Amino acid sequence: MCTVDIFDSTLRDGSQGEGLSFSVDDKLRIVRLLDELGVSYIEAGNPGSNVKDLSFFQALESVSLHNARIVAFGSTRRAGCSCEEDRNLASLLSANVDHVAIFGKAWDFQVTEVLHITLEENLELISSSVRYLKEKGKTVFFDAEHFFDGYKASSQYALACLDAALSGGADCLVLCETRGGMLPDEVYEMTKAVTARYPDAYIAIHTHNDSGCAVASSIMAVKAGAGQVQGTLLGIGERCGNADLSTVIADLELKLGIRCISGRLDSLNQTCRAVAALCNINIPHGTPYVGSSAFAHKGGMHIDGVLKDPRSFEHIRPEAVGAERRLLMSEVSGRALLMNRIEKIKPGLAKDSSQVVRLMEILKEREAEGYQYEGAENSFDVIIYKELFPSEPFFSFVHYQTIGSLPYADPESGASHTALVKARVRGESAIAGAEGRGPVNALDKALRAVLEQFYPSLRTVHLTDYKVRVLDGLDATASRVRVLIDSTDGCDTWSTIGVSSDIIKASFLALSDSIEYKLFKDRTKRR
Amino acid sequence: MCTVDIFDSTLRDGSQGEGLSFSVDDKLRIVRLLDELGVSYIEAGNPGSNVKDLSFFQALESVSLHNARIVAFGSTRRAGCSCEEDRNLASLLSANVDHVAIFGKAWDFQVTEVLHITLEENLELISSSVRYLKEKGKTVFFDAEHFFDGYKASSQYALACLDAALSGGADCLVLCETRGGMLPDEVYEMTKAVTARYPDAYIAIHTHNDSGCAVASSIMAVKAGAGQVQGTLLGIGERCGNADLSTVIADLELKLGIRCISGRLDSLNQTCRAVAALCNINIPHGTPYVGSSAFAHKGGMHIDGVLKDPRSFEHIRPEAVGAERRLLMSEVSGRALLMNRIEKIKPGLAKDSSQVVRLMEILKEREAEGYQYEGAENSFDVIIYKELFPSEPFFSFVHYQTIGSLPYADPESGASHTALVKARVRGESAIAGAEGRGPVNALDKALRAVLEQFYPSLRTVHLTDYKVRVLDGLDATASRVRVLIDSTDGCDTWSTIGVSSDIIKASFLALSDSIEYKLFKDRTKRR
Repeated sequence: MCTVDIFDSTLRDGSQGEGLSFSVDDKLRIVRLLDELGVSYIEAGNPGSNVKDLSFFQALESVSLHNARIVAFGSTRRAGCSCEEDRNLASLLSANVDHVAIFGKAWDFQVTEVLHITLEENLELISSSVRYLKEKGKTVFFDAEHFFDGYKASSQYALACLDAALSGGADCLVLCETRGGMLPDEVYEMTKAVTARYPDAYIAIHTHNDSGCAVASSIMAVKAGAGQVQGTLLGIGERCGNADLSTVIADLELKLGIRCISGRLDSLNQTCRAVAALCNINIPHGTPYVGSSAFAHKGGMHIDGVLKDPRSFEHIRPEAVGAERRLLMSEVSGRALLMNRIEKIKPGLAKDSSQVVRLMEILKEREAEGYQYEGAENSFDVIIYKELFPSEPFFSFVHYQTIGSLPYADPESGASHTALVKARVRGESAIAGAEGRGPVNALDKALRAVLEQFYPSLRTVHLTDYKVRVLDGLDATASRVRVLIDSTDGCDTWSTIGVSSDIIKASFLALSDSIEYKLFKDRTKRR
Repeated sequence: MCTVDIFDSTLRDGSQGEGLSFSVDDKLRIVRLLDELGVSYIEAGNPGSNVKDLSFFQALESVSLHNARIVAFGSTRRAGCSCEEDRNLASLLSANVDHVAIFGKAWDFQVTEVLHITLEENLELISSSVRYLKEKGKTVFFDAEHFFDGYKASSQYALACLDAALSGGADCLVLCETRGGMLPDEVYEMTKAVTARYPDAYIAIHTHNDSGCAVASSIMAVKAGAGQVQGTLLGIGERCGNADLSTVIADLELKLGIRCISGRLDSLNQTCRAVAALCNINIPHGTPYVGSSAFAHKGGMHIDGVLKDPRSFEHIRPEAVGAERRLLMSEVSGRALLMNRIEKIKPGLAKDSSQVVRLMEILKEREAEGYQYEGAENSFDVIIYKELFPSEPFFSFVHYQTIGSLPYADPESGASHTALVKARVRGESAIAGAEGRGPVNALDKALRAVLEQFYPSLRTVHLTDYKVRVLDGLDATASRVRVLIDSTDGCDTWSTIGVSSDIIKASFLALSDSIEYKLFKDRTKRR
């Protein structure tokens, strides 16, 4: 049981964020991640808005959730038609879910200037829409859009909108800070006015971050008696985003001792990284609790203080949210990290051994070239293997050539590129060609075609993800690029990296590391 | 005169942020930018910490500032030596500045566990250090490190530290929320206790963002009587960063009507972009007031509302902070937005005209292919131009070929690829070849080499950014990719897009759109 419920709107309000667009499969994976984290509600969008959303709601029916309930989102009925005739309400009912959220205006100016109806008519839209959905057996959340601006303009009218929703039987009143411009003490005072007026009602807070106070306002609303906080896991959303639930959850649990998720708080970092990957966004490194710098210490005095007692410069234990302390710019931190990976490959090696010192140097050189092994640790493992177990290499690369053209040389195949790779394996030369969609796809196939002849176990390997990041945007097409590749052989998954000003070379380096990692891994296991 | 003073610590606390490092020249430029914005104080670092900082302080002597005062930063003297002997204090005095800030511990646990001295000794360190600097004629700010954690642990001791600073003659008491873990109501209450105890003192608030509340806590401290807010312009700083002054300034000025900068608030966006460039960081797009998405609208209903009345979904006028409203093209935003772009190109076209209907269809088809015009609106403008002004095309593409290899064909040039492009322009065929770092760079050069013969104005065009996004990560190297290109001709900048499973083709489509946009733009201007 949670004392405060978390309502995640990543798939609805979050999808309004710039650059975001989810496939049905992305959405299903996000739903499973949120359910596992243990939020109470997942707002899934409007089942009637388009074909993609409808098929998502259909796919959801076969997903069994352990903690969360799916909420369909829509609006009150339009003016000028009955509830039975209304498309908005009909589309909500088309989803096979028990919980629905409908928004209605709670700011007099919006009613008269945007909806162009009378204030009385708007109240009737709210109460009749809620009542209609209740009669259909739904649990109904009423989103009072612009509640706080509305309350400031006319508290009487904003509250009348809430009265209308309750008179229709609404199960939850959602106070929406739609424009995101309020300050936390204002949100506290107005939420307090609502919880005082309706002491038995279930009140939710929904904020946006336009004044930089979305998290603080959410916390203050909880202090004023709100029982549910709405937001999105990484604060994604239109304009400046919604309240960042990763911060809200950790603040509520760790600062106020309020239980708000039924899963493990120490899975927060992992969940956020998985959701960020599905959203195809970077988590800004300074994001509270889940950014890569959240527990990173750089200043000498700070590092000294943290080593003496972490409480000196850490407000919580990083492990509580599944994060790790990082000590930057220091021999200690680089080496500790390196030792950690070496220990996994060859336990018991001394910290000051010449091999460790040499590996430390390689790490620094590579970082200066733009390599970053976080998220691609296995490329560094390959270096460690080579340094600690010097032996005949699995293969040595001789050359490759890729040819691309438009129109395609063989339009029927859909292949835009051909590639040719030559390598030497155990003294033998081998060459192979392949075609593919794009140069990297062709090169990947040709490299495998060469090596699988010698290493049949490579047939089980396939790539599961391929990411490209441009490092210096301002050099435009001659910029350095960082390519990250995830691979699997069905048992394990691993991640490798390549950096070059030539995207094809960067990809080739990552592909080559992936294959070498697999071969090292197999050899180590056989021992 | 400002009612609340802004104290920027970008060059001191900000420089502790991960990945940040400033040259002396960077620092001087940041100082000028901050001075022009009109902050009251600029904390410039510790003149004695290293040679670079010392030469920065020397260089500062020849900079004349209009609004801001430079503050040198250091610590109270160490235990076990006199003020005269102390290196920390001596280094502070080595700078030719009137204002100095020194930090001392205000949390009993830190005194006994980190400094390993008695609580009494710490009070004496504070008062004697302040008194010494006052005797040297300095204006002294006392940074009460860990004040809030200290107050929670022992309010009596935390306040005794402030008493000690005042007894030494401190001109300002800085309440530091060093670990960043407090909630805004706590900061309010504790600041209130301080302002009540010292009604005539000048109190500053200095927060960090580890609980996501740095801005809110700063605002609440001002409401509790603080007369100065410390932070960094984009919230940069160790771990989760300092209070983001860009948000604090706009909140204070626009929400509370408190004058806090003596420059123009509508230069805020420009200043932040310039500082970000000097810090070599991207401003996260959702940053309040100054992020590129801060006033970007995507949802159809939101765009509709904003077009009817901007107050619907904007908490302030974007121009107030020098920002611009952006309406994003997306599957949900629809016809209103399309009309908005058409209106700029051909005013007065009816919404239900066959041309608009046809453009709407094209938009939908393209989106189904993975095109997304937000951030690349000019590719859509090219489609509008072609539909509304059908004419001889500027050029028709015949074919291209790219060849890449490793080792490079000409290792000395650093070029990994060659490209060959053939096109027809006004009945004539032209072909050109080029080499480049990566296939896209080579292709870009070859395409220009062909077209510049016919359109000399293209010589002014160059690319300023190139971004790659992989659309379906799970198909790995055969995934579709979305390429976004920013171009400029020195006057305007524009953004175009290409989508394909072949990264080279996607890049070519975006390059080709960029060139067509430039040519359409020039032709329209000539009319």
